[in-house]
Amino acid sequence: MSDINQKLENIRQLPENERVYALNELIEGCGLDCPAAVEELKNILKAYDYGNLGLAQINPILGDIQYNAQKVVKYIKYAESLELDMVIFPELTLTGYPIEDIIDRYPVVVEENIKWLKEIAKITGKTRAVVGFIEKVKNNTGRRYYNAAAVLGEGKIESIIRKTLLPNYAEFYDLRYFEPSPFIGAQPPETLCNLQKPFETPKLNTVNGKKYGITICEDCWNNDEFFVPNLYNVDPVKVLADEYPDVIINCSASPTRTKKEQLKHNMLSYISRAAKTPFVYVNQVGAIDNNSFDGSSRVYNARGELLARAKSFEEQFLIVNPIKDLGKIYPLANGLEKTLREPKAFTLDYEPDLERTYKTIIQGIRDYFAKTGFKRAVLGLSGGLDSSVSAVLVADALSPENVFGVSMPSMITSDESKNDAQTLAENLGINFTHAPIKSMYDTINASLQELFTKVESKWEGRYKHSFTPDNIQARSRAMLLWGISNEFGQCLPIATSDKSELYMGYATVNGDMSGGFAPIADVTKTKLFALARWMNKNRAVKNVIPESVILKRPGAELAIDPKTGKPLIAEDALMPYEFMDEVIWRIENKHESYKEMFETAFLYEKENNISLEQKTEWLDKFYRRMSTALYKWSILPPSVIVDARSINKNDYRQPITSSRINYKGQTPEEIEDIIAAWE
Amino acid sequence: MSDINQKLENIRQLPENERVYALNELIEGCGLDCPAAVEELKNILKAYDYGNLGLAQINPILGDIQYNAQKVVKYIKYAESLELDMVIFPELTLTGYPIEDIIDRYPVVVEENIKWLKEIAKITGKTRAVVGFIEKVKNNTGRRYYNAAAVLGEGKIESIIRKTLLPNYAEFYDLRYFEPSPFIGAQPPETLCNLQKPFETPKLNTVNGKKYGITICEDCWNNDEFFVPNLYNVDPVKVLADEYPDVIINCSASPTRTKKEQLKHNMLSYISRAAKTPFVYVNQVGAIDNNSFDGSSRVYNARGELLARAKSFEEQFLIVNPIKDLGKIYPLANGLEKTLREPKAFTLDYEPDLERTYKTIIQGIRDYFAKTGFKRAVLGLSGGLDSSVSAVLVADALSPENVFGVSMPSMITSDESKNDAQTLAENLGINFTHAPIKSMYDTINASLQELFTKVESKWEGRYKHSFTPDNIQARSRAMLLWGISNEFGQCLPIATSDKSELYMGYATVNGDMSGGFAPIADVTKTKLFALARWMNKNRAVKNVIPESVILKRPGAELAIDPKTGKPLIAEDALMPYEFMDEVIWRIENKHESYKEMFETAFLYEKENNISLEQKTEWLDKFYRRMSTALYKWSILPPSVIVDARSINKNDYRQPITSSRINYKGQTPEEIEDIIAAWE
Repeated sequence: MSDINQKLENIRQLPENERVYALNELIEGCGLDCPAAVEELKNILKAYDYGNLGLAQINPILGDIQYNAQKVVKYIKYAESLELDMVIFPELTLTGYPIEDIIDRYPVVVEENIKWLKEIAKITGKTRAVVGFIEKVKNNTGRRYYNAAAVLGEGKIESIIRKTLLPNYAEFYDLRYFEPSPFIGAQPPETLCNLQKPFETPKLNTVNGKKYGITICEDCWNNDEFFVPNLYNVDPVKVLADEYPDVIINCSASPTRTKKEQLKHNMLSYISRAAKTPFVYVNQVGAIDNNSFDGSSRVYNARGELLARAKSFEEQFLIVNPIKDLGKIYPLANGLEKTLREPKAFTLDYEPDLERTYKTIIQGIRDYFAKTGFKRAVLGLSGGLDSSVSAVLVADALSPENVFGVSMPSMITSDESKNDAQTLAENLGINFTHAPIKSMYDTINASLQELFTKVESKWEGRYKHSFTPDNIQARSRAMLLWGISNEFGQCLPIATSDKSELYMGYATVNGDMSGGFAPIADVTKTKLFALARWMNKNRAVKNVIPESVILKRPGAELAIDPKTGKPLIAEDALMPYEFMDEVIWRIENKHESYKEMFETAFLYEKENNISLEQKTEWLDKFYRRMSTALYKWSILPPSVIVDARSINKNDYRQPITSSRINYKGQTPEEIEDIIAAWE
Repeated sequence: MSDINQKLENIRQLPENERVYALNELIEGCGLDCPAAVEELKNILKAYDYGNLGLAQINPILGDIQYNAQKVVKYIKYAESLELDMVIFPELTLTGYPIEDIIDRYPVVVEENIKWLKEIAKITGKTRAVVGFIEKVKNNTGRRYYNAAAVLGEGKIESIIRKTLLPNYAEFYDLRYFEPSPFIGAQPPETLCNLQKPFETPKLNTVNGKKYGITICEDCWNNDEFFVPNLYNVDPVKVLADEYPDVIINCSASPTRTKKEQLKHNMLSYISRAAKTPFVYVNQVGAIDNNSFDGSSRVYNARGELLARAKSFEEQFLIVNPIKDLGKIYPLANGLEKTLREPKAFTLDYEPDLERTYKTIIQGIRDYFAKTGFKRAVLGLSGGLDSSVSAVLVADALSPENVFGVSMPSMITSDESKNDAQTLAENLGINFTHAPIKSMYDTINASLQELFTKVESKWEGRYKHSFTPDNIQARSRAMLLWGISNEFGQCLPIATSDKSELYMGYATVNGDMSGGFAPIADVTKTKLFALARWMNKNRAVKNVIPESVILKRPGAELAIDPKTGKPLIAEDALMPYEFMDEVIWRIENKHESYKEMFETAFLYEKENNISLEQKTEWLDKFYRRMSTALYKWSILPPSVIVDARSINKNDYRQPITSSRINYKGQTPEEIEDIIAAWE
């Protein structure tokens, strides 16, 4: 206790604004259990008279209403103890977002979240709480649910806001079961599960004499001056701004992706300036399967200037006063600020996105394991880049003692690779062992060769040079890793495929692409190199990834290149990663066609002398391989989305039988000739 | 040729109506190349004066525009040669349906389909062609594309119809990139990729003096008297009916599912009667990944009576005249007619759905292989029900010589199972061989035990009784099957997991649940027994599945039951399949909660004396196992959807981290107490 008193004494020396945040951090550090600090903070805040808000940036478990409700109740009580005007939670607070088809198949989940909402309302006092929930639709026409938020206070539900704009692209599926709200702003409590026609009530919520306009997530993403083209024909923020609120609020659940922070900052700044109204944005934090939400809840003032921002990738309760300019800006991931106005072009300078990438994946691994009840991971260490980077990420997410690295050399594995694997494990402090696969390989190969002879007696078409030997190695390794997962509690194997190689189908089914989680499936190879260097430089322990791992040219070490007599190098079998990654980038970000790929030079072309024939050969190979990789994408393990666009099956949907698309296109004259030839 | 002349002579003896269909079948049998029969058919049809239509029920390859266009051109020319008024193709004719995110990432596909549409228009004459395509949206607000159809004729595009109602539930994702059409009915050709405001044109298309109202798929699925509740607030069919068309047309792509034929028949009959107008429905046929489209295009007269129906699961060009009652009703799958009015209740009488189930899966396998460029399959034959039924389905879809069955006995496999596997293969005429896995098992197990000892030196939590031995067996088998697939061209391994066991997570990752395609993943165990018996009775070769396979109680033969000393029986480890399948049925079809499961007796309870404790134990086990099976669902191979509802990831979306949902629910009092305890 004297420790607390000493800390309080130190805090008292700070300027008032800093005192608020130091006290709040102290209280959060004590699990909110520090009455002396609460009392002191309350007294400081009292001077602001009105407009004090708590932004409760929480990390929910999807569908675990009791778990989520406990966080809500905890923060409501804390906000009440500070006599804040309002505490605001993210979108769909009680269930977590995205709830998806659960609410169709299990209506009990909706019934439960409404019961919990009503019971939570009973414990509220003067402080209003904005709590997201799923509401049933009354009408006989339309989808069955609203994505809603309730304002709770004085022991009751005071009003209800429903989401109007429902995103239904990329990782969003809101229009499967949610009905767009026909009304913008607050409706009275008697409309709960009973909204039929508009009520004559103010659209705004008045709390302690100040007026608040409340919106939900996508509702703030449609300013028709900022977004050209835009997606919806109404802008809820403008509608509310016309009522002259003192503050506009947005309850959100918005996953992080490359460049999204830049877009979000510019957009929120723009709309608060356009509305001439302070804007409060409360985001969900934590990962739900493939989606990693970055938190970074924030406040812009009426001039569009950033007034406050919560931490990224951490739960936090941020106290702000948007009317009286009380706020603190916690730092973003390093590098993001620099790129706020960067043009859209492919670059190998990944630096501005690396800390965010690292934190996104760390959170993705950590939450997937925690929320499914796992705590340990096992992965193969080949001495190559993919498994080395994966090992660092998994160790940082789960703690080194919960990670087992297994070196599983085959006849092709070089001594250097074996040494690199061991050095990495030692540097990282994870558990490590060797498990050579030679005896497995020999036995499996013998069984297969015997079987192939039998099959060959009935079937033609046996390949002269098959991938069977490569795949036996990859699958033997997966057999060992899954074996550990089956034998030891709470342990999952890690799939180490990267995005570039998944595009090329350069990954073995039931081999390296198999696992409980795939941490780097949305990171291209050139970015992985940069991430490896970044981690070597920025982690507390420097240079855990041996320099030789980063310097060597990637290869799976599954086969010998007949030309060199050495293990096959992936770029020789495929194409230079720098070229490949720019093709991926142009497809995903610019939606370029095959023909458009020729209209501007690639970065790689600027630095290397590449013939048109060479470029054509690589592009043809790229599209051919990609077309046959769709099946592998469909069975990829859960994996965190990192990039602006991805091939994650929850983000990008392409039927496998579409493998015969002609990406090159034809001219009208060519088409006319083809049709004429069908006579 | 004298053969043709003899056939023509025989046909001339038939009544006029039958002559039309006999001639058309003859012409289709000759690949449309039979001028004498065409001439004769044209002359018969000429007498109808107006209203002759061709329903071109085609099987597209997704995104392969040239392939699809060739079918379109072929049937346009045939229709023209018969001097039909119109030939009608299914929804999104040129690309196939569902096109999904392809049109977002590859706009070149949209550009191409518009070019092809324009060139196809040039070859049209007096016969109008209704061709589905993807149109670009002109406006700066909204999604980027319309799901459209063009009426082509006299060398030009005559008018354009856009889909208004866009399904976005279950297997449908229309709202990801398609904008709902703001106008119902036809708009003039100058609106192509340029629709901004409504034009003053008739909503109907006039062809040869008769008026047609054209709609696209979901546009006819919203009659607010038939569907209560309904999903959309406008009914395009009613809007068009108010213009007094002679015929209403619907271009569709509607997959088959259990009970859907009954719903569709009743609905189409109802709306044609309500509109007092004949209704023409043209459906896509063939499978696209997980969706199997049944064709069965049809015509109802103005009294709602079925006038004509094309074949199910086959491409066909059906000639009809809805105004003058020309039509032929080709048979549906046996049994479907009986169940048109059956109440919604769980039953073990699967008979009315078995032929449709069989054909749905056969088409699913056949088209997945053909459209991805594969032609052969390899599967493990255990002598059990799942692999036996799968073998028959795959053999019937791909032809027996293209199937290799491999018996892969382990130390637990009984002689009876080995014999049953061989008998089945011989009965079926597929290729067959033995490949014992003992040496693989021993070597893998030795490698694993050595590895486990090393891991155990660092980690606690080794299971006393793990599934490692079971999984080594399942994975060794998958290793052999994937090996054959790697070594021999155009060959995929088959995953044999069934729906009941997938619900329970009773399938091995990288083992029996791994493969290129999973044919029975949407068939529950009790239905599989019925399907086995049905195939034994109804295939040309009877009783290919040995009776002993159907009579024995299913078990994976991966482990010995310590209680009996014999291989573990699945029902002993799980619960009776009859009970399990009813839980699945109630969840999927009635959305019952855990508590509601107790309110009415299960079929199994009526026939067996079950204590409340026993029922509780089984239900608890069901929900517990299901919650941890979500990961396995996410990596399930492509699989054809059969049931009314499924766990196919393209049909049902539930995040894996939602495994902590409380399906039981709580009372408000319980919730209040929990919150109070958080003080």
